[in-house]
Amino acid sequence: EPRFFLVSLAVTRRTGSDWVDAFYRGMLRLARRAGAPLVGGDLACGEKLVCDIVVCGAVPRGTALRRDGARAGDAIYVSGRLGGSALGLSGGPGAAKRRHLRPEPRLALGTFLRERLGATAAMDLSDGLSLDLLRLCQASRLSAAITAPPRFPGASPEQALHGGEDYELLFTVPPRVRVPAEFEGLSLTRLGVMQKGRAGTVLLDGKRLPPLGYDHFRS
Amino acid sequence: EPRFFLVSLAVTRRTGSDWVDAFYRGMLRLARRAGAPLVGGDLACGEKLVCDIVVCGAVPRGTALRRDGARAGDAIYVSGRLGGSALGLSGGPGAAKRRHLRPEPRLALGTFLRERLGATAAMDLSDGLSLDLLRLCQASRLSAAITAPPRFPGASPEQALHGGEDYELLFTVPPRVRVPAEFEGLSLTRLGVMQKGRAGTVLLDGKRLPPLGYDHFRS
Repeated sequence: EPRFFLVSLAVTRRTGSDWVDAFYRGMLRLARRAGAPLVGGDLACGEKLVCDIVVCGAVPRGTALRRDGARAGDAIYVSGRLGGSALGLSGGPGAAKRRHLRPEPRLALGTFLRERLGATAAMDLSDGLSLDLLRLCQASRLSAAITAPPRFPGASPEQALHGGEDYELLFTVPPRVRVPAEFEGLSLTRLGVMQKGRAGTVLLDGKRLPPLGYDHFRS
Repeated sequence: EPRFFLVSLAVTRRTGSDWVDAFYRGMLRLARRAGAPLVGGDLACGEKLVCDIVVCGAVPRGTALRRDGARAGDAIYVSGRLGGSALGLSGGPGAAKRRHLRPEPRLALGTFLRERLGATAAMDLSDGLSLDLLRLCQASRLSAAITAPPRFPGASPEQALHGGEDYELLFTVPPRVRVPAEFEGLSLTRLGVMQKGRAGTVLLDGKRLPPLGYDHFRS
């Protein structure tokens, strides 16, 4: 549950006050919807536009869904359809562009996973399924075997597997949990299963999936 | 009372891991002393080294010392001696350099001001006394009449008045409060008095003090 957020913004000498106003306006609209007030941050002037946003939320002690809670045999699920943001970034149609520019945080789904579904691990997909699932596997010291994820209309298989910034939720649930096909209109798709074996390996249709998602530190 | 802190760091391709390790080591040492764990943040790679740190603290509801609580007649005080950081930045001696590179947050003094002294307003001096006192006056809709502040050994009157990053506390107390000459070895010096009149005017020895401190947005 989001509680508050902080924004640090460095603008350049060429940043207009219109831009700054519109930036805060959009942010505050989303924040109002999420019930999280802007409580602080910093303002500075720099050579490059830089923005750092931190949202702080709360969960009952010990119940936070993390990346390291998956167990062997857990089913792997993803919300929505992937690759829309990558498609939008590469000049795709309006729906994909909106997906890239205005991602929706899956807050209600996150609460549902925790309170109702008993999910064992969860994370949002910001750097692409291939890389983010690898991270979940590494944190949980397991490997994963999946099939291809559902694709955003028009997105290529590569965009769906490796494209970042979809902000859909990747999560695992114990094998016997019945996961509904959708939650508030958002599809929930079973991708595969967590298993023992070399920790941090992701198999797609039995073949090793390279983590081609976005890595800030790749050289 | 500090509770936790968040660090977002963007490094360049040329930043060595030694630098990053030393950076976190120093930060964590200070954090341990303050009892504030590092609970999150972000890591990225950029063209410039950028760091944004947010510390979140807690006070009993309604008791936070802010800039807008000063009342006409309140005495104005400052902790320590000013200008050391500016002196250090301009190549001054070792003590001044340390002052610049390793400022000490006045946490215990802040608690003392709030709990024992009944201070009405307080802020730290990050952009220079002339500009920060102006901001306190503007927030409290008052003016201020002060004499010259105590100077860090070797600092010029200008460095003491306008130099930033000393992180000493500027505070106001009701007229009848007896303020000790020092707190845990740190001097507390009376600078003057808050008064009615044109809001946001600072008089030094009766003459208007221009706000020459550091302004991120000065063109």
